Amino acid sequence: MARLELNILGCGSATMTPRHQPSCQVLNVRDNLMMIDCGEGAQLAVRRMALKPMRLNHIFISHLHGDHCFGLPGLISTMALLNRTSSLTIHIFKDGAELFGQMLDYFCRERPFEVRFNIIDTHKRVIWEDDAITVTSFPLVHRVPAVGFIIREKPKLRHIIGDKVLQFGVPHYAMNSLRQGHDWIAPDGHVIPNEELTTPADPAISYAYCSDTKFSRRVIKQVEGVDWLYHEATYDDSLRIKAHKRYHSTALEAATVASEAGVKQLVLGHFSKRYVDETPLLDEARTIFPATRLANEGMVIDLNQL
Amino acid sequence: MARLELNILGCGSATMTPRHQPSCQVLNVRDNLMMIDCGEGAQLAVRRMALKPMRLNHIFISHLHGDHCFGLPGLISTMALLNRTSSLTIHIFKDGAELFGQMLDYFCRERPFEVRFNIIDTHKRVIWEDDAITVTSFPLVHRVPAVGFIIREKPKLRHIIGDKVLQFGVPHYAMNSLRQGHDWIAPDGHVIPNEELTTPADPAISYAYCSDTKFSRRVIKQVEGVDWLYHEATYDDSLRIKAHKRYHSTALEAATVASEAGVKQLVLGHFSKRYVDETPLLDEARTIFPATRLANEGMVIDLNQL
Repeated sequence: MARLELNILGCGSATMTPRHQPSCQVLNVRDNLMMIDCGEGAQLAVRRMALKPMRLNHIFISHLHGDHCFGLPGLISTMALLNRTSSLTIHIFKDGAELFGQMLDYFCRERPFEVRFNIIDTHKRVIWEDDAITVTSFPLVHRVPAVGFIIREKPKLRHIIGDKVLQFGVPHYAMNSLRQGHDWIAPDGHVIPNEELTTPADPAISYAYCSDTKFSRRVIKQVEGVDWLYHEATYDDSLRIKAHKRYHSTALEAATVASEAGVKQLVLGHFSKRYVDETPLLDEARTIFPATRLANEGMVIDLNQL
Repeated sequence: MARLELNILGCGSATMTPRHQPSCQVLNVRDNLMMIDCGEGAQLAVRRMALKPMRLNHIFISHLHGDHCFGLPGLISTMALLNRTSSLTIHIFKDGAELFGQMLDYFCRERPFEVRFNIIDTHKRVIWEDDAITVTSFPLVHRVPAVGFIIREKPKLRHIIGDKVLQFGVPHYAMNSLRQGHDWIAPDGHVIPNEELTTPADPAISYAYCSDTKFSRRVIKQVEGVDWLYHEATYDDSLRIKAHKRYHSTALEAATVASEAGVKQLVLGHFSKRYVDETPLLDEARTIFPATRLANEGMVIDLNQL
């Protein structure tokens, strides 16, 4: 099964603590790496998790709070020291492109690779796609403009049944057509239905990232039906009023989003530094949505394992 | 004896590694904290070493390479979250004041305290002084404009000999005059020499920070006679040509500076990530200057212990 892994590099909120790094994660899509948010210390977390910085070609920044982007200059400087040559695209709000653009032009002016900024806004739209995936931004509800991201694998190809294609003498050039689901028409005009020659494709997985955001029905609508949801759970539900005031969510609210959006798995993150142990947040979320887990630095989740 | 402590928060070079953080240290001068350089992750290192961010009022940035200043936005954001109110002064080259000023105006615009930039250049001059110390900048030899800093304690007061002042009936209001070294003139006109009433003041300690720099006789001249020298030793002496090309020093060169400048103690830092163990650098330096030690993250040096 093609690799689709979520690496948690940081799942704390705001202030760095010895327990948690600020927001940062890396999605490994068949050995192409995409980073979502880039808090301070991201370059060190990349190294700690033995992720290859040269395989990282896209960085998506959800919003312009420091704990989601202050790692950019350091990470990019280190890529320059490593003599990266392939271009890097940073998907970021306009103000961030300007500010970090200036920083990079000053501190990494001799970098041997291009940094491209793809300006995003709070509209729902596909901001990146390649052969394997699409990345869609959608609005969150936070103190500053903020977006979530949905990464969707494109439909995959069906699997050939080796014995069957041999038996029917299907030539090699027809395999791709079979994998796409077409029937095989033999030279004598006889039609062999695709289902006899192939087994179904692996499911195309989808993953939604929601951090930072207040609980909102609009967010539920945006992530409806995704397989995996990473949702911020800065506070436990006894601090719901504080959460709302600060445009953050509680663990119970994150579980409500997961449940009402009909997702399959929920990962909680962006924990307030007040928690020495986030088990109460997990317990609270599981009362509504049992398929919940806590993010933690160094965690690798195989997103194929639903 | 008044507290004068050097805290090593980061002594690696350029790229962060699991072993070393980028350059950052904090001088504790009688519980007032001054930071020298502020590499990425400085806010976390401050927390790890249990230093109080609210007691940190001055940050000195030696030069505008990312590994010496990328920690500024995160550290200052965290101070804002902690509701700091007292002003913070950053001593930094002009371009840095502009770039980080813009970053802070965007990311910490609602901070409840003032950040003042004191623009420094490569001239030798006193850039800060208070009742206890002076801080002098002086030029280093690096790829970009860079300065070292010498922190000098001001002369201290002599110690009163309790029994003696009682015996001669010296009144309380005269104590400060005695501590400054004046003789006591009794009401009957009799002069008691200061030496009979006091013991000598503790020595005023001086500390010089030299990172990053190429080996240079000019640097030796600047740090002549200081008590403590922190000097970069990016490479061992087998890489002297590489060191020169990159405007860095070897451990042997750092020891040469210490020896020729007549300092009392040498601390080596700014180690290249190629070294898994810096003992060879220490051994090399000690062939010339035995009173050498290696910096390490978390190290606290009592600068009174010469």
